[in-house]
Amino acid sequence: MSLPKFKELERAYGFDEVAIVPGDVTANPDQTNIEMKIRDITFAIPIVAAAMDAVVDTDFAIAFSKAGGLPILNCDGIQVRYENPEETLAEIIQAPDSEVTALMQKIYSEPIKENLVAKRIKKIKKTGAICAISLVPANTKKLAPLAEEAGADIIVVQSTVTTARHISKSYRGLSFTDLCHQLHVPVIVGNAVTYSSALELMRTGIDGLLVGIGPGAACTTREVLGVGVPQVTATIDCAAARDVYFKESGRYVSVITDGGIRIGSDMCKAFAAGADGVVFGSILTRAAEAPGKGYHWGMSQPSATLPRGTRIRTTVNSTLERILFGPSSRTDGTENYVGALRNSMGVCGALTMREFQKSKLVIAPSIKTEGKYFQALQHSY
Amino acid sequence: MSLPKFKELERAYGFDEVAIVPGDVTANPDQTNIEMKIRDITFAIPIVAAAMDAVVDTDFAIAFSKAGGLPILNCDGIQVRYENPEETLAEIIQAPDSEVTALMQKIYSEPIKENLVAKRIKKIKKTGAICAISLVPANTKKLAPLAEEAGADIIVVQSTVTTARHISKSYRGLSFTDLCHQLHVPVIVGNAVTYSSALELMRTGIDGLLVGIGPGAACTTREVLGVGVPQVTATIDCAAARDVYFKESGRYVSVITDGGIRIGSDMCKAFAAGADGVVFGSILTRAAEAPGKGYHWGMSQPSATLPRGTRIRTTVNSTLERILFGPSSRTDGTENYVGALRNSMGVCGALTMREFQKSKLVIAPSIKTEGKYFQALQHSY
Amino acid sequence: MSLPKFKELERAYGFDEVAIVPGDVTANPDQTNIEMKIRDITFAIPIVAAAMDAVVDTDFAIAFSKAGGLPILNCDGIQVRYENPEETLAEIIQAPDSEVTALMQKIYSEPIKENLVAKRIKKIKKTGAICAISLVPANTKKLAPLAEEAGADIIVVQSTVTTARHISKSYRGLSFTDLCHQLHVPVIVGNAVTYSSALELMRTGIDGLLVGIGPGAACTTREVLGVGVPQVTATIDCAAARDVYFKESGRYVSVITDGGIRIGSDMCKAFAAGADGVVFGSILTRAAEAPGKGYHWGMSQPSATLPRGTRIRTTVNSTLERILFGPSSRTDGTENYVGALRNSMGVCGALTMREFQKSKLVIAPSIKTEGKYFQALQHSY
Amino acid sequence: MSLPKFKELERAYGFDEVAIVPGDVTANPDQTNIEMKIRDITFAIPIVAAAMDAVVDTDFAIAFSKAGGLPILNCDGIQVRYENPEETLAEIIQAPDSEVTALMQKIYSEPIKENLVAKRIKKIKKTGAICAISLVPANTKKLAPLAEEAGADIIVVQSTVTTARHISKSYRGLSFTDLCHQLHVPVIVGNAVTYSSALELMRTGIDGLLVGIGPGAACTTREVLGVGVPQVTATIDCAAARDVYFKESGRYVSVITDGGIRIGSDMCKAFAAGADGVVFGSILTRAAEAPGKGYHWGMSQPSATLPRGTRIRTTVNSTLERILFGPSSRTDGTENYVGALRNSMGVCGALTMREFQKSKLVIAPSIKTEGKYFQALQHSY
Repeated sequence: MSLPKFKELERAYGFDEVAIVPGDVTANPDQTNIEMKIRDITFAIPIVAAAMDAVVDTDFAIAFSKAGGLPILNCDGIQVRYENPEETLAEIIQAPDSEVTALMQKIYSEPIKENLVAKRIKKIKKTGAICAISLVPANTKKLAPLAEEAGADIIVVQSTVTTARHISKSYRGLSFTDLCHQLHVPVIVGNAVTYSSALELMRTGIDGLLVGIGPGAACTTREVLGVGVPQVTATIDCAAARDVYFKESGRYVSVITDGGIRIGSDMCKAFAAGADGVVFGSILTRAAEAPGKGYHWGMSQPSATLPRGTRIRTTVNSTLERILFGPSSRTDGTENYVGALRNSMGVCGALTMREFQKSKLVIAPSIKTEGKYFQALQHSY
Repeated sequence: MSLPKFKELERAYGFDEVAIVPGDVTANPDQTNIEMKIRDITFAIPIVAAAMDAVVDTDFAIAFSKAGGLPILNCDGIQVRYENPEETLAEIIQAPDSEVTALMQKIYSEPIKENLVAKRIKKIKKTGAICAISLVPANTKKLAPLAEEAGADIIVVQSTVTTARHISKSYRGLSFTDLCHQLHVPVIVGNAVTYSSALELMRTGIDGLLVGIGPGAACTTREVLGVGVPQVTATIDCAAARDVYFKESGRYVSVITDGGIRIGSDMCKAFAAGADGVVFGSILTRAAEAPGKGYHWGMSQPSATLPRGTRIRTTVNSTLERILFGPSSRTDGTENYVGALRNSMGVCGALTMREFQKSKLVIAPSIKTEGKYFQALQHSY
Repeated sequence: MSLPKFKELERAYGFDEVAIVPGDVTANPDQTNIEMKIRDITFAIPIVAAAMDAVVDTDFAIAFSKAGGLPILNCDGIQVRYENPEETLAEIIQAPDSEVTALMQKIYSEPIKENLVAKRIKKIKKTGAICAISLVPANTKKLAPLAEEAGADIIVVQSTVTTARHISKSYRGLSFTDLCHQLHVPVIVGNAVTYSSALELMRTGIDGLLVGIGPGAACTTREVLGVGVPQVTATIDCAAARDVYFKESGRYVSVITDGGIRIGSDMCKAFAAGADGVVFGSILTRAAEAPGKGYHWGMSQPSATLPRGTRIRTTVNSTLERILFGPSSRTDGTENYVGALRNSMGVCGALTMREFQKSKLVIAPSIKTEGKYFQALQHSY
Repeated sequence: MSLPKFKELERAYGFDEVAIVPGDVTANPDQTNIEMKIRDITFAIPIVAAAMDAVVDTDFAIAFSKAGGLPILNCDGIQVRYENPEETLAEIIQAPDSEVTALMQKIYSEPIKENLVAKRIKKIKKTGAICAISLVPANTKKLAPLAEEAGADIIVVQSTVTTARHISKSYRGLSFTDLCHQLHVPVIVGNAVTYSSALELMRTGIDGLLVGIGPGAACTTREVLGVGVPQVTATIDCAAARDVYFKESGRYVSVITDGGIRIGSDMCKAFAAGADGVVFGSILTRAAEAPGKGYHWGMSQPSATLPRGTRIRTTVNSTLERILFGPSSRTDGTENYVGALRNSMGVCGALTMREFQKSKLVIAPSIKTEGKYFQALQHSY
C-alpha cells in the first residue's frame, strides 16, 4: 500500500512477551558480581525499594539498606505530612474498599511539614544506613537543599512522567541542570520511557533514571490516560540512551527499571534488557517488615479529581531476608530474587551486570503456556 | 515464497493494542485547549453524544450542549416515531431478554412523523442549546430541509457504512454533493473506516466524518457481517484523508471516532490516532440523565430480518457532570474523561488537539497485563 | 541474524483474526447475486450441507436442495451401513459421553451395503432434488460408477487430506484423472489447504475443491496430528490456485471452504477470502430437520485405533428456513446467513460473488474485544 | 526510526503457535518408518522416557525399552540415593502440598551411593533392555566410567543449561571432548536451545542433544529465571546445527526435543521442526506403570535455596501400551502417540523421519479456536 500514512506504529514489549536466551558459556552463580552504582555509591544488590508509603518507612529503609539495596523514602506522602504516620497508615488499611479512595484523597491533602522531612532523614542516617528520599518536581526547589542538609545521600525527583522541559504557568519549571549543579549528592529522576527523553534528562547531569510509566500493580495510568510503554522496550530504549550518553560524556547514568516486576523472571528480563537496577514495590509489601501490612497503593491515587491508582490487597507471607536471599521452598519465583538473578546470570555465562545486559532476548509470548495448558488438561483426563 | 497470492493482508489495530508514548516535553493540564470545531461552530469539549435512543433525548441534548459537547438527536428512532417516547422507552426497558429484540422490531416499524422531527428540534433550540439531528440516508432528502427549517444547527447522515456512491434500484441514491449545496448548516456523515472512502466523502463538501464500523458495545455488525476495521487504524487512515483533503482544498473536515470508547485511555488513544472528536454512547448510559435508565441498545438492532445489535445492561452510577468533569473517586478511567484528556495531553506536552494528534503510538497489546497478573498471583501466595 | 535456518515459518490466519474492509461504493443487498456453480449446475445459494451423519440424511438432502443449496449425503456412514439408519442414530444420540466413542467405533465397523447407496440416491432423485453423495478414496473406484448410475448428480471424494498422488501398498492409488474421465457428472474432491496441492488436484479434471483440514467443531485432527492451516489463509491460497488454473485451462473449479464456519461473519470472510461456496456442518445441526437431534460428530471419530472427533452437544433452536433466510430475532449472527451474506456484500459494494471475493481483508484479531471488555467492566462499576 | 538500538528481538515459537502443513503427496500410515538412532543403537520408536523420578524407575525402564523406546534412569535422584526408593517415593506422594517442597529439599540432600548406580544398571541390563542413565555435570567425571563399567549403553549428562564451556571456581569444568574420548558408549548431553551452543556441543563428539529449557509441565525455570526458548524455535535452531555439523564432519548427532510435549500434535510438531526424537515426561505419569502414582515433579525442584519445579497432580488413566500404541477411544490426542505420528507423517507424505522433518510449518496461533468458540456459543443459544 502506498497510501499516505498519518502515523506508523512500532511494537513494544513487556515482561510476559520475552524470554532470555541462555549463552554459549555458563558460569557458577557464586562467581557473579551484582553490584549497582549510583555515581560513587556502591550497592551490594541492584534492587531499589519503591518510594511508596506502603513499602518504605524509616525502619524499612534502615533494614533494606543493611541488606545491601537502595531504599527510597517518599517525601511527598504520609511520612512527611503526619507526625505519627503509623496512625494514618492504620486508617487507610482499615478503610473499606468503597471508601478508601475518598479517604486517601483527604489524607493526602494534609500539607507537608518541612521539619518532618529532616526528622525522617536524620533517623535513618543515625543508623549508618544510606538514605535516599523522593520529592515531586513542584516541591524540589524548596525541599531538596533542606534534605541534603539533613543528610540525605541521594535525592530522587519523581512524577508520572518527568521531562527535562515542562510547560507551566503556575510555577517556573524546575531546571534539572540547575538542581544538579546546586546539590552535591547524586540525583535520580523519573519516570521516563523513551530514548529521546532519557537522553535529554541525562544531559542535565543526573546520576540515575527511573524507567517505567504505568506498569505497577497499584497504578492505573494506562487505563485512565492511555499512556505508557511496556517495560522491556522502555528499558532497552533508555539503556541505548545511557550508552550513547556515556560515549559522548564519559558519565555513566544508571538505568533503573521501575514498575511491573512481580517474579524472578521479570527482574532478570529487566537486567537482560539493559537495566542497572530494578525497583521493587508490590513484591516488598509481602514482607513482614513492610508498613503496608497487607495492603499496597499507588502514589497517583490520592489525586483529588482524577485518581489513577488502586489500593490492592497483598498477603504478608515472607520476610525481607527471604524475599531477597531465600532460602525458599516456593517454586514460583516469589522468593530469593537475588538467587534467581545469580542463577539467571549463570546460565547466560554473565559474570557482571554489564555482561548480563548483553544477553539475547527473544519474543516468546506467555510464560509457559505449555505447562499450564497441560495442567488444565489434567482435569479433563 | 514466490507463490501467486490471491490477496495480501495488512494489520489493523484497536484501542487495546496500542499505548500513547509520552513526549520529550510535558505541560500542565490546565494549559491545554481541547476545543472541537464543526465548520464554524466551536465546542468547548470534543465529545459527541451518540444518536442512540438510550443515550440522547431532548432533555439530555440540552444538558449535554450546556456542558460544552455536541449531542445528536436520533431522528430515525423513538423520538420521531412516538408522541410520548417515554412510554415506548419504558416498554423496551421492561421487556425480558428473550422478547426484547422482537419487541423492538415491532416498535421501530412504526412510521416516522414529520411533525415530531420539527417539534423535537424546536424544544431543544428554545433553550439556546446547539441542536444536531441524525437521519438515515433513505430519509435525508425528505427530512433534512425540514430539520434545517425547524432550526437544526447540524445535520448528521448516518448508516452502518456510508459511501459517496451507493447502488440501489429502489431509490435514486442520495448525493452528498447536492445535499451540501442545498443545506446551509454543516453536514456530518458516517460511518466510514478507510482512507479512500473518507476522502471521497470529504470531497462532496461535508464538514465532519464519523469513523467506526461495528465497534460499539451494543452493536454486533462484526459478528453478523464480518465487516469492520478496528478504531485506531480506522482513525489513523481517516485522519490521513483529512490532512490530504485539507492540503488540496483548504477545508478542514473534522474526524470523529465513533464507537468502542469505554474508558479514558480509549478516548485519549482516539485523539492520539488523529481524531478531532469522539462519540460517547455506552459511557453516557451510566449517567442518571440518560433516557436508557440502565439499558443500552444499538440502532442496527431493530432490523426486521437481520438484527445486528443487542440490548445490554449498564449501571446508572454517575451523573453527566461527573462523567465529563469529575471529581472522581474511581480509579478505572470511567469518570472525569475531560480531566483524563487534559492529563494525557500534559504528559505528551500537547497544548492543542492538533499537537496531541501528533503523539507517538506504540503497539502494546493488553492493558497492564503486568499488574493484573500480579493481582491474580496474590490469591495463590 | 545470518545463522543457517532449518526452516522459515509463514503466518496463517483464521476467521477470528481478520475483518472485511467495506468498499468505496455500497449497494443495496437486494441487488446482489449469490449463485454458486459446480460445472454446469447452478445453485441459488452458495451453501453446501456437510456430508456428516448428524447433518444430512435423505429427507434433509431433499429439503436443503429445495432451499437452493447443495446437500451431500455421506455414503461412508450410517445411511449406507444400516437399513434403518434412524435406529442407529438414536443409539449414538442416547449413549452417555463416556461410552460414545467406543460405541461409534463399533457402529462404523459395520460394512457398507452397495444396495443402500443406490436406494438412498433414488429416494432423493425421485423428488427432483439435486443429489450429491460423498465417498472415501478407498471406496471410490467401486462405488462412484454405481452412484452415478443410480442418478447421483455430483460425486464427492473426501478424506482428511486428499492429494493427487497417494502412496499405498494395500491398494493401487485412486487416479482422479481416470475418475474424472470415467464419470460424466461433476467431481468434487477434498480436503486440501495449500496452493500446490490444490493446483495439482484441479489439473486432474475435478470441478470443485473442498478446502479445510481440521477446523470443524466436531474434529480434533489439529490436536491429534498437529496438521492444519487456518481457513482464511487456506481459502486464499486455494483461490489463487483456482485463478492460476483458470488462466491456464479456461476451466473454473469452485473452491468451497469446508469447516470452522459458525456465525455469519465467518461465512462472509470465507467468501471475501476467495471462496465460491461454503460448507455448513454444526450450524445445520441446530435445525429441527437435522438428523443429529441436538448432537453432532465428526467423520474422523469412528477410527478404531485413533479417533479424532468428538460428539458435541448442539441445541436444536431453529429451522432450516430461518437459519438460511430468517427472519431472525437473534443478534449474534446465527440465523439468516443468506441475509448476512447479502448485507455484507452490500457494504462492500459487491454485486456478484466474484466481486465480493476481491474485497479487502485486514488482520484484526478477536471479534469485538472492545464491546466485550466493556460488558465485563459493567459488572465492576 | 533510526534511533540507536540497544538490542533487537527475534520471535520464537512454541507448539501452540504452529501447525503442520499437509503435503502434495500423501502416504498410508503403515508405510512409515519411525526409527530413531543414537550412534549405532536403533530404537523402534523415537520416544525417550524422561530421566525423572516420577517417570522412570528400573521396572519402567525395562518395560519402556521392550516397547521400543529409550528410557533414561535418573542417576542423580532417589534411585541412587536410597536403597529402597519405593519408600521415599511414597513419602513424596503422601506429603501435603504445603510441605512437599521442603520435604523434597531434605530427601534430595541425601548423598548418592555409588554402589546403587551399578546396582540399578545391572538390574536393567539383566533383562536385555537398553540401559541409559543420566548424570549431572558435577558428578559425571566420577560416575560415568563406573556406569559404563556396570553395563550402561548410553550416558546422558543433563542440567538445566549445559554448554561446552563452563566457568567455575569450585571444580575444574567437565570437558565433553575428554568424556567422549574416554567413554566407549554414546553420550547424550542437554539441555540446549540455540544454534551456536548446540553446534559447540556437537563438536565435542557427543551423539545426542536434548533440546529444551523450561518448557516441561513440572518445571518453573521460566518463571524463576526468565530463561528459555519455546520448543519449536529451539528445535529448528538445533536441527540447523545438526545439519551444519553433519556436513562438516559426516557425524549425525540426534536432536531430541525435551519438554513441553502434551498431546499428539505437540509431538508431531517437534518432528516437523526437525527433531529425531522426543522426550515424554508428564505424559508417561498417566501410565499405571509409572512410579509417580499420580504425581510428577521436576528435577530442579529439590534445590535447597531456589527450587524451580512444582509437584503436580496427574491422573493415572491409561497404560504404557495404550499411551504409545492405542487402541484408544480418546479423541484429544492423549493416547496412541505412535499412531498419531504415523498418521501425521501420512498426510505429509513422509515415509521417513528425515522426510517428515522437512514438512512445512505455518504460524497458526491457538489450537482450533474455531471449534472451541463454537462450543462456547452453544451455551448461549
